[in-house]
Amino acid sequence: MSYLDLITSPTLLLDEKICRANIKRMADKAARHDMKLVPHFKTAQSHQIGGWAKQYNITEVTVSSVKMAEYLSGQGWVNIHIAFPFNPLEIPKLNKIAEKQSISVQVINATTAQMLVDQLENPVGFFIEIDAGYGRTGVEVSDFGLIEEILLIAQKSDKLNFKGFYLHAGHSYYMPDIPALYEQTRNALSMLKHKYNSEYPKLVTRTGDTPGCAVMEDFGDIDEMGPGNFVFYDLMQAELGGCDKEDIAVCLAVPVVDIKKDRKEILVHGGGVHLAKDVLVGENGLKNFGEVVYLNENGWSIPEEKSFLKSISQEHGIIKASDELLAKVKVGDILGILPVHSCMTADCMGEYMTLDGKMVDHAEGSLEK
Amino acid sequence: MSYLDLITSPTLLLDEKICRANIKRMADKAARHDMKLVPHFKTAQSHQIGGWAKQYNITEVTVSSVKMAEYLSGQGWVNIHIAFPFNPLEIPKLNKIAEKQSISVQVINATTAQMLVDQLENPVGFFIEIDAGYGRTGVEVSDFGLIEEILLIAQKSDKLNFKGFYLHAGHSYYMPDIPALYEQTRNALSMLKHKYNSEYPKLVTRTGDTPGCAVMEDFGDIDEMGPGNFVFYDLMQAELGGCDKEDIAVCLAVPVVDIKKDRKEILVHGGGVHLAKDVLVGENGLKNFGEVVYLNENGWSIPEEKSFLKSISQEHGIIKASDELLAKVKVGDILGILPVHSCMTADCMGEYMTLDGKMVDHAEGSLEK
Repeated sequence: MSYLDLITSPTLLLDEKICRANIKRMADKAARHDMKLVPHFKTAQSHQIGGWAKQYNITEVTVSSVKMAEYLSGQGWVNIHIAFPFNPLEIPKLNKIAEKQSISVQVINATTAQMLVDQLENPVGFFIEIDAGYGRTGVEVSDFGLIEEILLIAQKSDKLNFKGFYLHAGHSYYMPDIPALYEQTRNALSMLKHKYNSEYPKLVTRTGDTPGCAVMEDFGDIDEMGPGNFVFYDLMQAELGGCDKEDIAVCLAVPVVDIKKDRKEILVHGGGVHLAKDVLVGENGLKNFGEVVYLNENGWSIPEEKSFLKSISQEHGIIKASDELLAKVKVGDILGILPVHSCMTADCMGEYMTLDGKMVDHAEGSLEK
Repeated sequence: MSYLDLITSPTLLLDEKICRANIKRMADKAARHDMKLVPHFKTAQSHQIGGWAKQYNITEVTVSSVKMAEYLSGQGWVNIHIAFPFNPLEIPKLNKIAEKQSISVQVINATTAQMLVDQLENPVGFFIEIDAGYGRTGVEVSDFGLIEEILLIAQKSDKLNFKGFYLHAGHSYYMPDIPALYEQTRNALSMLKHKYNSEYPKLVTRTGDTPGCAVMEDFGDIDEMGPGNFVFYDLMQAELGGCDKEDIAVCLAVPVVDIKKDRKEILVHGGGVHLAKDVLVGENGLKNFGEVVYLNENGWSIPEEKSFLKSISQEHGIIKASDELLAKVKVGDILGILPVHSCMTADCMGEYMTLDGKMVDHAEGSLEK
């Protein structure tokens, strides 16, 4: 019996072989550059996929919320890092996790540093997040006043321990010239390392984004990398050149419910609540919410002629179909959709099905709760 | 103790008073027009909110998936209608639900009609969905050949019972002239009713969209209305003129984690996994992923000067803040965000908190599972 016989409604498929190859490739790359790989598990959010990662010498993970840290704690991780500017209202939850799990947080202002100093009950590490041009979060790289204010506050406590500097150059998703942008990242982290190294000889520097980690070969003296999306990849990463479409490890299986041959459109059950609403806009101005792959007993294949989701609403997806697809599709068939943004799709779906029909857990689902 | 003392991470607040007022207003409107209100519960997806609706003489609901129908079945609904072109792979699940719950589906092609006739084990109603110009789903209003083909197939079975015509004029979300569009809807449904009335004297016509149901006063001879979003409303509906911002019954409570006074930006924990990524684009080209309200012990108030989420990623939200807000906000505060698309936000969050700090169930959460 094939996994295909088990699918009757939208289901997120996970090709374990592709996923493991993605993890191995990044682990090999990190090793080649003498860097530690600390993957961001906001993408996979899974105990089981964490188990696969451990087989490639990955010992620590990153998450983006306390809730995700709670889910992954107690799974044997040497450390879990919460790579989101810490929310002081969650110090009680942090104290609880830190009783049994080595954990670190991200600090970018004095208020939060002081609240941690005042309220921490167990040792917790912290990174200072640095903004070297992305503009989303972090201390501006030249704001030594703020960096030193945070460090001074932390020194008042033996529970809040400085680990180093973290930089997520998320503008690699928007700017075509990743090498130029990485020079910024390398220079910022290297400058900070040398400036604070004598005072904190164990400090490390870490860089975050998948496009950069996938594309770059020169990481300078950066110590650690923390990409997330690479575990699955997606169409956005393929467009940025970080992967091929063949490297995408997840696809949403969607049932075909109607076909309009005259309009070359196929209606599927698969919309915003399954895929999320991330979108690519082509040079022609056409929106693309995901691309069709053909499912078979061993996984999926990418068609020569492209068919794609041209619009989605809450549950509906409308595929602009190639002639090839139109010629063979029937109501009641199941198609695969490669997602635009796999982290969001996985979060919407809350579980995965592998190609042998087994379910894999995700923090948002109920499989291991 | 206030509900505010219970919030430490992103939480979807529900103001029961506003929600009940929205339900009552639409129920009164339906009664005034001698129409039956069958609300679309893809928005609320809740047993408890269903209980509130029943207090306003609502006896039937609509859903957009078999999964949602499973969740709401056995809750005393006279009928549950699945307003999504039926996916024949789910006939076994439908058979199971129909053992104990009166249920109806939507049919738009002969293949699905035939599969239902072949496989149904219990009586199920069906609507033919009509497309009178929206272009998403349904049988084109002039395609009598297809309508009659479906009706003929259904006549072969005593289990598949024709109930009438359903029309979702979803282009009311994009086209400014709702009255013109409603003429299309009224005319299409009226024509079909008169054409098939002699053969099916009990057939009813139903129209779906919230903007139309909220704005229009002339429904012609349409029998039933099935809006969904009106239960909560949101910024998109306010922009379309279907409600005031004061009618929006849900808001996402988000913790403030950083403030950049110089950029007039506030970083909150609240992103795409909480709000979904629906967006309004202003005349100035600025994106708006949600608008700030001030939380207080009794709910929330809308500021005079607007502050809004200018960008979101998976967990991050960046607010473009008014001077008024900047003058009083602190790290560790909680702000409210009115969502752009409340159906999607509720689906992401999977539960609600009322203003007395109680949790309300949603099909995607685990409260009543």
